[in-house]
Amino acid sequence: MSEKIAFLGLGNLGTPIAEILLEAGYELVVWNRTASKAEPLTKLGATVVENAIDAITPGGIVFSVLADDAAVEELFSMELVEKLGKDGVHVSMSTISPETSRQLAQVHEWYGAHYVGAPIFARPEAVRAKVGNICLSGNAGAKERIKPIVENFVKGVFDFGDDPGAANVIKLAGNFMIACSLEMMGEAFTMAEKNGISRQSIYEMLTSTLFAAPIFQNYGKLVASNTYEPVAFRFPLGLKDINLTLQTASDVNAPMPFADIIRNRFISGLAKGRENLDWGALALGASDDAGLTK
Amino acid sequence: MSEKIAFLGLGNLGTPIAEILLEAGYELVVWNRTASKAEPLTKLGATVVENAIDAITPGGIVFSVLADDAAVEELFSMELVEKLGKDGVHVSMSTISPETSRQLAQVHEWYGAHYVGAPIFARPEAVRAKVGNICLSGNAGAKERIKPIVENFVKGVFDFGDDPGAANVIKLAGNFMIACSLEMMGEAFTMAEKNGISRQSIYEMLTSTLFAAPIFQNYGKLVASNTYEPVAFRFPLGLKDINLTLQTASDVNAPMPFADIIRNRFISGLAKGRENLDWGALALGASDDAGLTK
Repeated sequence: MSEKIAFLGLGNLGTPIAEILLEAGYELVVWNRTASKAEPLTKLGATVVENAIDAITPGGIVFSVLADDAAVEELFSMELVEKLGKDGVHVSMSTISPETSRQLAQVHEWYGAHYVGAPIFARPEAVRAKVGNICLSGNAGAKERIKPIVENFVKGVFDFGDDPGAANVIKLAGNFMIACSLEMMGEAFTMAEKNGISRQSIYEMLTSTLFAAPIFQNYGKLVASNTYEPVAFRFPLGLKDINLTLQTASDVNAPMPFADIIRNRFISGLAKGRENLDWGALALGASDDAGLTK
Repeated sequence: MSEKIAFLGLGNLGTPIAEILLEAGYELVVWNRTASKAEPLTKLGATVVENAIDAITPGGIVFSVLADDAAVEELFSMELVEKLGKDGVHVSMSTISPETSRQLAQVHEWYGAHYVGAPIFARPEAVRAKVGNICLSGNAGAKERIKPIVENFVKGVFDFGDDPGAANVIKLAGNFMIACSLEMMGEAFTMAEKNGISRQSIYEMLTSTLFAAPIFQNYGKLVASNTYEPVAFRFPLGLKDINLTLQTASDVNAPMPFADIIRNRFISGLAKGRENLDWGALALGASDDAGLTK
């Protein structure tokens, strides 16, 4: 527990992760763009800094849990990475483009530091229950160093090798498959509903048999009732992720026709004023198309 | 066990079901278009008939497990249904259109017989392991009468009410969702592969966490290795089912954009000579599009 950790980004996911690390006995120096979000962590022993760079210990470890590519690129300036310096490790947990990870990793290596792609599959409540899963990719020694730390807040750690962008590819693929699961349930439940079958009964049958997995059971509840509040993952973030997926796929010349449909569902949802719903609301598109919504 | 049962159709699914019923002590009179397929069942005590109508007991029970709508409509002629007659029950297990089921049910009711839609979710090996699931819909009394019989060869029985077509809607929705699962894995694994990540490693991560359901674990193995032999469910049957899904959805004005993509995957697969592969081979489409297959 002697590692002093810089922790940058205290949103819905960052906050519970920081809390768990503090409870596990790590010394945390935390930073958030909106400083007021950091204050409650001082009760658990965190030190709050005003400038992200002041959180960095040379040769130490820094976690980042930020909104998007631009936020990570802006925060990890040359100056900050230079301070992190030789043997420093950046655990980059944001869902960003694999290409951004690869470029950032080069900058880190230039200064002797290591960039580890470390996106997490977990809603905030899954972090608190320690049932989430994390994908890691990047420098082997750096991954070994941080594994005991991340094991405090996830159930599974999956290693995807040396390419710092690989873990991001898996994260985007996983989110894409969740979005597809929402759409397919939306279409199937709507066909059932228009045949006089309750959405609840098809949901119960399929998610207790063929599709007895958490994704279908949990998101299926939303699709069965077509209720997308409260919000666990905001609708516009779904569009951000599917755009990253399609860009990543396009970069390697891999067409993804399902992803194209998902993207248009999100765009249409924004046109219909759904920006404040959970991203599961993409499944409303099938109901809209069938004339079931107003 | 006193019920004498007519059993029509001894294909990949019908045969193991008939075997289980014989082993459970039921008296079976069996018929198959290709009579040679029925012969082995005589060792288990089945009586083989040359004409389907000779298998029917007035007021008794008849199971049918046939290839498609046309086969069911042809076999269940007015003459045969009249012989089945008052209180007779037809357990119709084929994957056919809900509309065909509704029309057949009317003919049955005319003669005092009952038609129960009873499609099963099970590959042949799942029937033998008794881990499949069956959906029932139709006359309530008829369903009660046949439940103890079907419970010999499935794990779960799901009741979808009085509409004889409802169970078929669920079956089509389920097969549609399986096909979508194949396509989404095809797209996701291909994006990973073209980023230098092995299909096997993304398969293992996702199907042991978010997508830890039999459909993803079993079909995912095929998609990870892009190997679609041996055949459990023939490729052209996949096209038959998705065509039924799209027709059923169109009948109630419910657009299904994912189903449209799936349909074109099957059509393209036939154009590429894949008619003798398992229907999982629809996932090859994503690899084709990305230039990974020849």
